[in-house]
Amino acid sequence: MSDAAYPVVRLKPKIDTRALKQGAPWVYADELVTDRRTKALSAGSLAVLQDTNRSNLGLVTVNMGSKIIARTLDQDVDAAIDPQWFAARISSALALRERLYSAPFYRLIHAEADGLPGVIVDRFGDVLVVQPNAAWADVRIDMLADTLLAVTGASTIVKNASGRARALEGLDTETKVIRGAHPGVVEVPMNGAIYMADLAEGQKTGLFYDQRDNHAFAQRLADGARVLDVFSHVGGFGLAALAGGATHALAVDGSAPALDLATRGAEASGWADRFATRKGDAFKVMEALQEEGQTFDLVIADPPAFAPSKKALQNGLTAYSRVAMNAAKLVAAGGYLVLCSCSHAADLAKFRQASLRGIARAGRTAQVIHTGAAGPDHPVHPALAESSYLKALFFRLS
Amino acid sequence: MSDAAYPVVRLKPKIDTRALKQGAPWVYADELVTDRRTKALSAGSLAVLQDTNRSNLGLVTVNMGSKIIARTLDQDVDAAIDPQWFAARISSALALRERLYSAPFYRLIHAEADGLPGVIVDRFGDVLVVQPNAAWADVRIDMLADTLLAVTGASTIVKNASGRARALEGLDTETKVIRGAHPGVVEVPMNGAIYMADLAEGQKTGLFYDQRDNHAFAQRLADGARVLDVFSHVGGFGLAALAGGATHALAVDGSAPALDLATRGAEASGWADRFATRKGDAFKVMEALQEEGQTFDLVIADPPAFAPSKKALQNGLTAYSRVAMNAAKLVAAGGYLVLCSCSHAADLAKFRQASLRGIARAGRTAQVIHTGAAGPDHPVHPALAESSYLKALFFRLS
Repeated sequence: MSDAAYPVVRLKPKIDTRALKQGAPWVYADELVTDRRTKALSAGSLAVLQDTNRSNLGLVTVNMGSKIIARTLDQDVDAAIDPQWFAARISSALALRERLYSAPFYRLIHAEADGLPGVIVDRFGDVLVVQPNAAWADVRIDMLADTLLAVTGASTIVKNASGRARALEGLDTETKVIRGAHPGVVEVPMNGAIYMADLAEGQKTGLFYDQRDNHAFAQRLADGARVLDVFSHVGGFGLAALAGGATHALAVDGSAPALDLATRGAEASGWADRFATRKGDAFKVMEALQEEGQTFDLVIADPPAFAPSKKALQNGLTAYSRVAMNAAKLVAAGGYLVLCSCSHAADLAKFRQASLRGIARAGRTAQVIHTGAAGPDHPVHPALAESSYLKALFFRLS
Repeated sequence: MSDAAYPVVRLKPKIDTRALKQGAPWVYADELVTDRRTKALSAGSLAVLQDTNRSNLGLVTVNMGSKIIARTLDQDVDAAIDPQWFAARISSALALRERLYSAPFYRLIHAEADGLPGVIVDRFGDVLVVQPNAAWADVRIDMLADTLLAVTGASTIVKNASGRARALEGLDTETKVIRGAHPGVVEVPMNGAIYMADLAEGQKTGLFYDQRDNHAFAQRLADGARVLDVFSHVGGFGLAALAGGATHALAVDGSAPALDLATRGAEASGWADRFATRKGDAFKVMEALQEEGQTFDLVIADPPAFAPSKKALQNGLTAYSRVAMNAAKLVAAGGYLVLCSCSHAADLAKFRQASLRGIARAGRTAQVIHTGAAGPDHPVHPALAESSYLKALFFRLS
């Protein structure tokens, strides 16, 4: 295919191209010349990106409706985005995961870092949950789905459309099974526990792999411990702690379906008698537990993103501090506290500061014994390396 | 003991006491009133720290000759620094390590974070290597040593005086066995390998525990791999990789005694036929390997601190970049590269940038799959949490 095969889009003058030349994957809307011809390009179509001197910078996909107006797909401007192209990237991603994990349960594709911008694929054995969170992948969902099945040997694909990024790309929100049969609730073995994931029902009762290494670290602190898992979702930390020898785990969450799946996971793991749940607002439940005089040897709080945007940062940090204070009050002397944040806007230093402020307000002193992040099946694109969103702080309290 | 029992030292006016009140452990020389009476205090003696309003801020130890002129030992200004006091802190530190590790091989005391400012203790079974890197501990070395033996049940103590911080405290550099018999070379089991550590010969052929978790992560990448371990010391990454199923490991170091211990470790582990060494300058050996056309599936470079101070930062980053470039050239397609820095002055973002620059200069593109730090037997004091010195970046290269 010659250059002429793809239309050309061009950077505005004076846009610094160094980052793009070094592999930065994004062009923002205010960086691109948007003449009538460019505006006519359909969302997800392909184009050759050039600088103002008409030098080629790479093959991109464009979305005139998105703040990320172009995403680099290939350095080769003649590349065909066909099943072979998808297969090469999926195979490369698969090789990393097969090296890291002994069973097929992992994040298979982590977007830009795996060469498929905006595309997330989580693997649960024979079931793949695909999030095509950028227009180029959404319009190619059939090619993507068929290639995924061919490369991995999986049988089922759920297209999950609950990602917030989809709205920014002008995409719908309909989650559905697009290959194979409805998977129902799937058993997921991880860190010696069995988790239950309801994969076809959006994100609310699915399963995230990013905390796996942090679950494993918490497990090292759990032997013989009484454990409290606040914002437990389907039991991520709590079940891992039971696998690590915890005598008892109490999971707290606002979602009854999530707690039900957590309980079913405990049953499937053979730990029903060591597991309990409390449904309710996490802050209220923590206050109630304080009033009851309860303490735990290991307390984990893994709340939703309190600071999803820069605008929400200050309120978010206040909320993290409040979680830290309430959770710290429930930690027995010499016990452990795990505080997590999945907020992009709150960087590690700010999150740690907010957490320590809360711990101090509870009248406790702390050692920081470990700082965790998302696991290695969530690789990071070098140009986006600053943005590691997941932070898990492990404290020992006096 | 009443306040009057310890002399009082006082902060200068206008010194912000918030950090100290929140537990910051250090007072700098320019923050303290140093009248004749204060100057007469012997290095390592005890005093009550007061603010300019004569409010007590804590029990400190002073060293008029050090830039860190006072270190907080206890919030209780009446505390007696006696064997019971040492025993409480050592017991608390031991409880954390016994929870984390199944065998008595770990950093037992990590200075400020474990409540013993400037004191490092590494445990190798029955042998403890103590670094009293602050005057207060040096003058109390007998009390510290006897309490350590009593609490841990160990038999031997090496006082290691090679730490650079000792000069800043005006302390000698004589390393010697102060309790028990000369330990000779000690076998250290870690991550499924056996390491050999020569504990009584300063730092050069001892063993550091801080990379243990990073060794373990490299191990997950090592199955079936040909491995190159540059700046290998006594074989940290190389032997761990062999334990993880590497077919072969080549260790490169400038120190013949270190390589000899690495080889003895490989022999003791039963892997002598899969292990080789090359003595020489790391850069020269990497260039020679390039000329020989050699590649490896996993390359690790764990150099000495190239940027030990802010002054050395720019040159240090250039050196890290050069290591990255040379190491990247030796990584097979789809292989893994591990780059480490133990430089305080080069923070994670700067070190990552320098590394990526070197990788790009080798004509390679990278995914960042993991970022490691010192293990949890190296806890961090909350007030010093910014200063995590050890960084290990795990890349997969195209």
